[in-house]
Order: sequence, then C-alpha cells, then structure tokens
Amino acid sequence: MNQWGLTCSRCSARLPFRYQNMKCDCGGTLLVDYDLELVAKTLTKASLHERYPSMWRYQELLPVHDPANIISLGEGWTPLLRMPKWESKLSLRRLWVKREEQNPTGSFKSRGFSVAVSLLREAGATKAAVPSNGNAAGALAAYAGRAGIEAFVFIPMDCPSLIVDECPLYGAKTILVDGFIHDAAAIIESGRGEQGWVNVGTLKEPGRVEGKKTMGFELAEQLGWTFPDVIIYPTGGGSGIIGMWKAYLELKELGLIDCEMPKFVCVQEEGCQPIVDGVHQSSQPTRAGEDDSLLLAASSTIPNPTGMRVPNPPDLPLLLAIVEQSGGTALAVSKVQIAEAMRCLGTEGISSSPEGAATWAAMLQLCTDGWLKPSDSVVLFNTSHAMKYAKLGTSAAIPIIRTYDDFVMYRSL
Amino acid sequence: MNQWGLTCSRCSARLPFRYQNMKCDCGGTLLVDYDLELVAKTLTKASLHERYPSMWRYQELLPVHDPANIISLGEGWTPLLRMPKWESKLSLRRLWVKREEQNPTGSFKSRGFSVAVSLLREAGATKAAVPSNGNAAGALAAYAGRAGIEAFVFIPMDCPSLIVDECPLYGAKTILVDGFIHDAAAIIESGRGEQGWVNVGTLKEPGRVEGKKTMGFELAEQLGWTFPDVIIYPTGGGSGIIGMWKAYLELKELGLIDCEMPKFVCVQEEGCQPIVDGVHQSSQPTRAGEDDSLLLAASSTIPNPTGMRVPNPPDLPLLLAIVEQSGGTALAVSKVQIAEAMRCLGTEGISSSPEGAATWAAMLQLCTDGWLKPSDSVVLFNTSHAMKYAKLGTSAAIPIIRTYDDFVMYRSL
Repeated sequence: MNQWGLTCSRCSARLPFRYQNMKCDCGGTLLVDYDLELVAKTLTKASLHERYPSMWRYQELLPVHDPANIISLGEGWTPLLRMPKWESKLSLRRLWVKREEQNPTGSFKSRGFSVAVSLLREAGATKAAVPSNGNAAGALAAYAGRAGIEAFVFIPMDCPSLIVDECPLYGAKTILVDGFIHDAAAIIESGRGEQGWVNVGTLKEPGRVEGKKTMGFELAEQLGWTFPDVIIYPTGGGSGIIGMWKAYLELKELGLIDCEMPKFVCVQEEGCQPIVDGVHQSSQPTRAGEDDSLLLAASSTIPNPTGMRVPNPPDLPLLLAIVEQSGGTALAVSKVQIAEAMRCLGTEGISSSPEGAATWAAMLQLCTDGWLKPSDSVVLFNTSHAMKYAKLGTSAAIPIIRTYDDFVMYRSL
Repeated sequence: MNQWGLTCSRCSARLPFRYQNMKCDCGGTLLVDYDLELVAKTLTKASLHERYPSMWRYQELLPVHDPANIISLGEGWTPLLRMPKWESKLSLRRLWVKREEQNPTGSFKSRGFSVAVSLLREAGATKAAVPSNGNAAGALAAYAGRAGIEAFVFIPMDCPSLIVDECPLYGAKTILVDGFIHDAAAIIESGRGEQGWVNVGTLKEPGRVEGKKTMGFELAEQLGWTFPDVIIYPTGGGSGIIGMWKAYLELKELGLIDCEMPKFVCVQEEGCQPIVDGVHQSSQPTRAGEDDSLLLAASSTIPNPTGMRVPNPPDLPLLLAIVEQSGGTALAVSKVQIAEAMRCLGTEGISSSPEGAATWAAMLQLCTDGWLKPSDSVVLFNTSHAMKYAKLGTSAAIPIIRTYDDFVMYRSL
C-alpha cells in the first residue's frame, strides 16, 4: 500500500496525513505528498497503457487507501479537442479545448469531489457541507448521494437557478445565501461543530486539489507525455491551478516527463479579480488579508455569479507564486468578451460555460497583445455546459410555424 | 480502403452505397453493409486495445472514406456505471447505467450526428435539416457548426426551451413547429428541393444508425466482449435499437463475440406508444400506415415532449422484428413513474433525462412483473441530462438565509 503525508507549500513543514484542516501553522496550505519511489514501481507509461480511461487510472497518486471507498460516477478522461481552423486564423502552433463539461455532473468539479467524497467515506464522515457558486455544490450533492453521505450546500442567491435546482435533485439539503461565497463559507464555519459537517470548501480538505490534479496528468498523457506551452484556466479559488502545478511537479519527479513547465494563465471576470490584481501589483502587499467586501466594492462592475467570482481565494500567495514561477500571467475579461466567446465556441460546436468562454476571450486578448507567440501550443479549459447558466425565455424570439409556406413567408420577411 | 454498400433489412436486396434515400422499393430500410472479411483484418481485439477511447475507434465499421472528413467533438466511450446497491435490492445479477449524457452535446444524439455530418461533408452538402424533439436538433446544430454546414432545425413548440435555446447557440437556424415531430418532418420534405436541405431525419440517411451502433460496440467491449442479458432503451424513432442490433450482428460475424444476443426492451411513455402497442398486438396489422394524429388522439394522456414521443416511427416493422427476435419486450411507463425514477437516479448521483429515467422505471416494473430474473445482467441507457428538461422557478421553494442563526431557525421550523 502506498504511503502519503502532507507538506506545507509555503514553509515545507512535513506532517502526517489528515482529512481536515489543511492550514499549516505558518499560514501556508498543506498538500498531499507521496512516496514517489514507491509510486514509480507501479505507475509507469506501460502500466497506464493497460488501464481504463478514467481519472482513477492515476490511483497511486490519489490518497485513498481502500479501493472499495472510491466513489466514482464516471469522471475524468475528458476529450481534448483540437481547433485547427483557429490555429491558422490566430497563428498559433496548436490550440486545444479540454472539454471538462463532459464530466458526470456536467462540470470539472466532478473530479475534486470524486476524491473528496471518497476520503469522507474513508474517514467515516456522514455529513458534509460546501460553499459554492454552483458547480461544486452540484458535484458534492451527486457524489455524496452516491456515497450515502448527507450533503448541505450553501449557494449565493444570485447563482443560476438551474445549477441550484440540480442540488435537491441529487438529494442535497440546499440553502441559498444572501451574500457572496465567503458569506456562505462563514455560515458553514459557524455551524460546523454543532451540525457535525465536514467542510469540503476549497483547500479545506485534501481531496479536491488531488482530484483536480488529474486534469494535469490527463493533459500530459493525452499530449503524448509532453506539456503544452500555455494553460489558460478560469480561476476562482484556484484549486485547479494548484492541482495541475502539483501534477506536473509529480510527473517530473517520477521521470514520466522531461520538459519545461507550462505557463499558467489565470482568467477572471472584471470586477472580481484578486489574482489579476495580485499578479500585476506584485510589489504591493497581496490582498489576502483585506476585508472581503472591499475587494468587490472597489470595482464599478458587478461580476456575474460564476465560479470565477471568489473575492478572497483561500491561498492567494500560492496562486501568485505558481503564475510567476511558471512565467504565466493573469487577466480579467469583460462580460461582453465572455458573451462573444460563448457565441464563437457555440458555432464551433462547443457548449461553453461563462468560465470556459472566459478562457477563449483571454486567449484572443493574449494573441492581440502579442503575449501568445506563433510557436505556442495552448490549452483552454471549458469547465461546464452553457445550458447550466441559461436564462429561460430567450427562445421567445424563435419563429413558430405550421407549414412550409409559413417558413417561406418568414424567411422572406 | 474499406468498401461498403446497402442491404435492405426487409427484402435483403443489395444496392450501392448512397448518402440519401434509405427506403428500399419494398418499403424496408436500407442499412450499410461492410466487407467484414476485409474489416476483420484490421479491427481486432488487439488493435482496439491500442486505440483511443472514442467511438471512432470502430472506424472500419463507420462509412466515412476519408478520415479528414470526420467531424468529431469528443463523442463516445461514455462511462458504464454499475449500481451495486440496487443489484442486491432488486436481486439482479448485474445492473449498469450507460451515461450517454456525457457526450459532447449532452445527449446520445452526438454519436449519430458525428457520423451523419461527416457523411454530409464527404458528400459535399452545404445545408441540412432535421425534425426533432430537441436533442437531435442540438446535435445537428453542434456538428454542422463545427463542419461549417448550415443547419435548419424544426422542433415542436412544446419542447423544453433549454434544448431549443441550444440550437441558435450552435449557430443553427431554429424554427418551432405548431405540431408534432412528423409535422416538422413534413415541412422539411416540402421544402427540401427548393431549399437544398439534406434531410437528416431518422432513417433518412445512413449515418445516424451507424453512429448509434457504436453504443452496442462499446457496451460489448466495456463488458469484456460479452453481451448483457437485457438492454432497456427509451425508444422514439428507434435508430438506437436498430443500430445496436446491427452492431451485435456485425460483432458476431466478425467473430469478436460468441454469445446469445441481448434481449431488447423498448420503453415509451404512456399516450404515445406505437412500439408497445405493436409488440403486444402483433397479431393485428401494425399501425405504420395509419394516420399519425390518430395514434396520439387515441390516448387520454398527453405524453411529455421527449425523444420517446414519436407517433409514427419510420420503420415500425423492423423495430418489432428486432424486439421479437431478441426475446425482448416493450412497455409504456407513466409520467409519475418517470418523475419518481428521476428522483431515484438523482440520489444515486445521476442526472437523468425523462427518457433515461423511463428505463429505470421500466426496469423496476419488469422486476415487479417477474419478467427480469435474478440471473439477468441489465443495461439501462441514460440518454441525456436532467437539466435540459428543467423548468425554472422550482428553486423558489429553497430557503434564503444570511447567517448560521437563520439556518438554525429554518431547520427548527
């Protein structure tokens, strides 16, 4: 059996593995570390070749002891779609979209919660709670349902109602919060002791980062054990960025890959952009300690309630360090850019969430700015379906006909 | 290069391959036949083991000549989820759900349209039209968008508005029809010549059945080159049933599998059940020739606008023959049974369409009736996401809170 512990990403302190409290005394985030020499004995390119296409093919690098505890709904090994038309149009060497909306809960959040809920089962937990702008809530609800664990999800009240509605469908206790995601998080922290909830919020437990890590493994394996030059990722709490960065360090240390790390580009929406501000004002102190509400109030634009709207990421310094070390950047895109990008991806056959569309908008911006070079290979992440964010009633403008003559008449108008 | 032609499923006449008009002079449906001796040279268990997990791994059995014409968005190789809790609860040897909602357009329709649109490209077509209760429209829209082909989709006006809204997102010309799917089909037939549309309706062209066939291949391969005892499938036009039945004949003839054919069970919703009526009244003449409107008017229940609501399947005798030859059956389930099944699948972490839920309801019914035996292995198909059919406003009943004290108060009410 594989062994693992925890290492602080800030002070490098090593601690025994635990299921909760990922905060080191120094304030840094504790991440799972593995005995990679042991892992290397069984996790090889040849052994992977024989395994089933699921994120659990990387089982030695996921911290579940007993395979019987794995809660799987069919997550991972999502398609990586090449965009050849746009490669020539934009003069990029390679452009791909990783279709994370094809996960079981319709979003990339399936990965993190498959691991997190497996760990809940391994730890014997019976109740879990999460603050979420929507997709994490749905994922906890689904995986907890499958595991027979009671789920409590706390969602800002302006989040898309389809995403909210999914949660009771999966059997979760669903509560709307008159506030932002950190207000939802505060409610869970207040009630945790009394209610017996395990808080599975971002960086509160070890599973979600480890699950997200598999996006990085898959990308490397799907690209023939290479890294792309640039990964453009919609960033809220940042567990995906932390996970993929960790994945690449592990792959390098395992000797499965030997090339430059990809540049990580974080995308946010204008009006809630702590990572963007942090990257571009790195001489100033980071905003991690400021009052949350100020971060939003400072902006004149009210950002959409998407997964990117996280005013106070739990470990902003770690995110800034990853972006900087990788040679990446961060940028904010507007509502208008996002809406245009959704339409553009739509006509390419891709149903994209605003978050996924934001990566497309960012990619266009970085081409215009010259930050992306013709020699670059670029991967975008489409994290969820467009329809989850749909507003009903837009079809009111669609014509209604009874006969072909009606069609001809309508077309001639 | 592989060669293929067409064979009539009724009179066995053989014709050269063509891209349109799948009706034989005898009234039967023309299906693609392959030179299986040639196919067997390259399509082997060993060669499949080396191939990418996508439905295009079965390329020798899909009628596209030039791989450059393949329009792929990442379809196929969907997860097959085992339901161990329910196996013991219901005394079934094995129970699986094939998660077709994880396809690129959020439904099983991706498969058929990946092949159909590839054939449009191979044939040089520039405009295509489809009558659809929704998911086929979205799939044509997406694949045609990717291929640069103009799509016209005709959808009954009572279909779920999210499904309708997807189509313009993908860039399709979207038209609502004041009528049923056969009224939409009639409009396309009327305008086909004038507008230059290729009609890609069910059994109008060879690609959709061939694409759906890959569900059968995958099932066999994912089950270690065996068949399940029973396949329960939500049936409207029936191209999925025809496709899987064809897949199994091909696998047997290729020598890739050597066991009994699975029993095919068609599920419909009460109120629109031509296949169910046909199976249970097989001594009477089939209803294929009757006036369409009578088929619905005869019932006191108005069925939901789902993919199962096809009053007049294009080749009912073929469907009835498959069900009968396989030793299967057909049954209709009620709106109430479907709604209960959606909730039940939800608490198992599966977001199911009404059509997918109908297979669960049918499975429960067949257990109760004793038609399913404890020795049976059973596969259900979840064809699409629950959310595509969602009605907004249901979240109105979800409580809104500001603090943990609000939560405690709300729980104590």
